[in-house]
Amino acid sequence: LIAKAIHIAVDVMGGDYGPSVTVPAVIKALSESPALTVTLLGRTTLFEKQFNNQLSVFGDRVRYIDCADEVGMDEKPSYALRHKKESSMFLSVAMVGRNEADACVSAGNTGALMAIGMFVIKTFRGIDRPAVCAEMPTEKGSCLMLDLGANVDCRAEHLSQFAVMGSVMANSMKQINHPKIGLLNIGEEESKGNEQVRLAAGLLEKNKNINYIGFIEGDDIYKGDVDVVICDGFVGNAVLKASEGVARLVGQKINQSIERSWLTKVQALLSRSLFKELQKQIDPSRYNGASILGLRKVIIVSHGKADIQGFCNAILLACRQVEEDLPEKIQLRLS
Amino acid sequence: LIAKAIHIAVDVMGGDYGPSVTVPAVIKALSESPALTVTLLGRTTLFEKQFNNQLSVFGDRVRYIDCADEVGMDEKPSYALRHKKESSMFLSVAMVGRNEADACVSAGNTGALMAIGMFVIKTFRGIDRPAVCAEMPTEKGSCLMLDLGANVDCRAEHLSQFAVMGSVMANSMKQINHPKIGLLNIGEEESKGNEQVRLAAGLLEKNKNINYIGFIEGDDIYKGDVDVVICDGFVGNAVLKASEGVARLVGQKINQSIERSWLTKVQALLSRSLFKELQKQIDPSRYNGASILGLRKVIIVSHGKADIQGFCNAILLACRQVEEDLPEKIQLRLS
Repeated sequence: LIAKAIHIAVDVMGGDYGPSVTVPAVIKALSESPALTVTLLGRTTLFEKQFNNQLSVFGDRVRYIDCADEVGMDEKPSYALRHKKESSMFLSVAMVGRNEADACVSAGNTGALMAIGMFVIKTFRGIDRPAVCAEMPTEKGSCLMLDLGANVDCRAEHLSQFAVMGSVMANSMKQINHPKIGLLNIGEEESKGNEQVRLAAGLLEKNKNINYIGFIEGDDIYKGDVDVVICDGFVGNAVLKASEGVARLVGQKINQSIERSWLTKVQALLSRSLFKELQKQIDPSRYNGASILGLRKVIIVSHGKADIQGFCNAILLACRQVEEDLPEKIQLRLS
Repeated sequence: LIAKAIHIAVDVMGGDYGPSVTVPAVIKALSESPALTVTLLGRTTLFEKQFNNQLSVFGDRVRYIDCADEVGMDEKPSYALRHKKESSMFLSVAMVGRNEADACVSAGNTGALMAIGMFVIKTFRGIDRPAVCAEMPTEKGSCLMLDLGANVDCRAEHLSQFAVMGSVMANSMKQINHPKIGLLNIGEEESKGNEQVRLAAGLLEKNKNINYIGFIEGDDIYKGDVDVVICDGFVGNAVLKASEGVARLVGQKINQSIERSWLTKVQALLSRSLFKELQKQIDPSRYNGASILGLRKVIIVSHGKADIQGFCNAILLACRQVEEDLPEKIQLRLS
């Protein structure tokens, strides 16, 4: 439950489903959090008729900014930054930049959101580039992983900055003292990997502000022995999406197994409900809401395929990060 | 079933379990394939007492080379190449180099195996570096993926070479005409990704010998819409191991769900057997046996954690590639 009054700018146009998912998600978040106020940015004609009755219940806790333009999922960040100044995404970030909103949430083009965020809100001194950070399920609970796709080419210094930001986030948002930081590599031995991760390991070992525990491999992400996984955005994105693919493959195999099995209909139903419970636990939208860390304000990017609960989680994550003053805490650690 | 007489050199010392897994796997392979002859290379004292009765059944289809040394799982490839000339791994590859064996199989250090393979057996003209290629499960069956860890830094030309080798392998081993080749990236749009994949895409588009279909993302690996996935070894290894981690996480969650559920003991047993069947389908050791493609002979590296069935699969994969003259076919396509 949110304690203080918080105002979130929501880009309702982003994601694969647009307002049909983002607006009901806002309604859910408003119902659950009486201290929350939301400004919806997007083509209001697309959702006002359908959702007007439900939204009017919240009175002036819901505001609207009708936007003539939007950022496409496939648009180049540099193009969006230059030519989409009237888009719902740009105007959402701009509200945060002018302190008219505490944070913004979008399910749109991550690269464009980051570029607009860097331009409008700026990074902290000591942060060259922001990183996308999200929670991943593990055998013992969850861990944080960054970068998940914002930076395709990372120098060792970038990976080292990611480690500091991830450490502050684990400490602040998950109350973990001295979060264990692992650097993703293709072997645990010092000699393994490319030059960039070996150089980054050297920087992380020297940094006394973080609890660096060494190289980890891809399967270690899900074991739960580290609190924060550091990697470049290309590898992080590939790993994140491959994991989603495996989860979906499992779902398909489960259905095939049940169909082929000798279970009675009642048993099949029982098994199916067990499997559904399981899928919820490994479902990425449950852990939805990735943070663009390194900016002076809170910006949350939601999975493009997030459902209503998933996008609602992203809004609530934004609220919690505002309450925790996460950007402030990152700045303190950097200085 | 193998038709022609084939002789495989097996490094029994590699892997996490050594001869306790590799020797029973050899016994299984020999039982299933009457045309197979095997030379076991390793410390014979470690397994001869335990397995002598079972091995003697096969008469002169089993030969032994007692090796004084072995390559450690954590040893640098350059060190192994220089200082481990009497190791079971080096001597296994050397047998293939001298045409005393048709192929070799090891569950040992992949980097060392590749380095020794390059030194002893050599790559084809037109191949700068070999790549590790394995079969991955998909919603429609399986696909091939390379490189899985041999090359941490790949130039565009390397990725292009991998595509040709993967295409030949899918065609030869899986009877797929015009295998669909996808290049792993962090978005499907042309502007996405790093310079290396964009340059590689340009080379693949120009190559008329392959059926290049464009960029794919991590989750597409498991959908089954492409026959061959191309990526650099760092990304490939991270994705492969992360996928194993997700599969293990699923297994753990399944057991938790069953324990917490209201199922009767009989229903729990039934569900558990369904789940086990499922895990077998997504188990990496079922798809075991990775090929080091680009060498003039067949070398198969098995997963270090492979069980008896897994290592046996690796031996049978070596046999099939020898039967298919896979290296010969790759050479033909390159020239």
